[in-house]
Amino acid sequence: MTLLNLPADKEISQIEETALFKTISSEKISKILAICNKVRFREGDTIMREGDEGDSIYIILEGTVEVAKNLILKDGDEGEENRSNKVFTKLKADDHPVFGEIALLENAKRTATIKALTDCLFYEIRNSALRALVEEDHELGFRIMYNLATIVSSRLRLADEEVVKLTTVLSIILKES
Amino acid sequence: MTLLNLPADKEISQIEETALFKTISSEKISKILAICNKVRFREGDTIMREGDEGDSIYIILEGTVEVAKNLILKDGDEGEENRSNKVFTKLKADDHPVFGEIALLENAKRTATIKALTDCLFYEIRNSALRALVEEDHELGFRIMYNLATIVSSRLRLADEEVVKLTTVLSIILKES
Repeated sequence: MTLLNLPADKEISQIEETALFKTISSEKISKILAICNKVRFREGDTIMREGDEGDSIYIILEGTVEVAKNLILKDGDEGEENRSNKVFTKLKADDHPVFGEIALLENAKRTATIKALTDCLFYEIRNSALRALVEEDHELGFRIMYNLATIVSSRLRLADEEVVKLTTVLSIILKES
Repeated sequence: MTLLNLPADKEISQIEETALFKTISSEKISKILAICNKVRFREGDTIMREGDEGDSIYIILEGTVEVAKNLILKDGDEGEENRSNKVFTKLKADDHPVFGEIALLENAKRTATIKALTDCLFYEIRNSALRALVEEDHELGFRIMYNLATIVSSRLRLADEEVVKLTTVLSIILKES
């Protein structure tokens, strides 16, 4: 992981494409850029681990990451817990997706493990810096929190659909057995 | 459904207890109260139906509601879809929980069906009125959207846990068969 300092001119458009920073004026985007650090990870690096404390959010500028969650499988009669990872999704740089953003809300634990599938370049934003910014500029705070709620809400919709699908499959299996 | 007009004095504390309006000053709570309508529903009434367009949010002042979602079950060889409701949770007036709040974010469809299990009294807030308010007062908007993102995020956490549990059960069943 290395820190780079590059000029911030053409970078405003990258930030504007990020779902978390939609409908925010260029002037306010500059304030966000001022607290972004560019960080690189190598193919195979783990960027965050499920269960860890989270204190940064990331925006993908280059590369692809995978998002994986633990499954808990009971093994043998002793019922020891055996954790195996399931890959839920991949995120690519195309729309500059954000991850780790839940930690903006609470000092919550990471809900997934994120690994670099290729060499990656991210913007990293410390929560403490972003929180200070949104408390100082409430319009910016309003837009970011609206976007964050929208992102989380669309993830909730997908998770809810998944629950309904899995419950349906289970009830069919249990009916047949 | 009847509309009541009551004085707004002791009602500020009820609104302050609602997760959506936490950490908001009493002065700003008054602005919210000004756009709340009191509405009553009778035991057995359906307050919202999954799939309908949503244009209001509700805060429970008195009574209990059930939250149910459709399960899709294929029936017979023709594979006709057969929808059956599963009750996911009940909400009671205790902490003045909010429901329907996803519609604040987008003109999204209701994600669950809500029925009154007892006679109920709610505050109803039209989305259009609340949207106008948060665009006019960005500090209020920031606090509400922060709270909304937090509510949705904790629901996402529960849904994610449910997905992991169900996937784990399914993989055990499929391993054994």
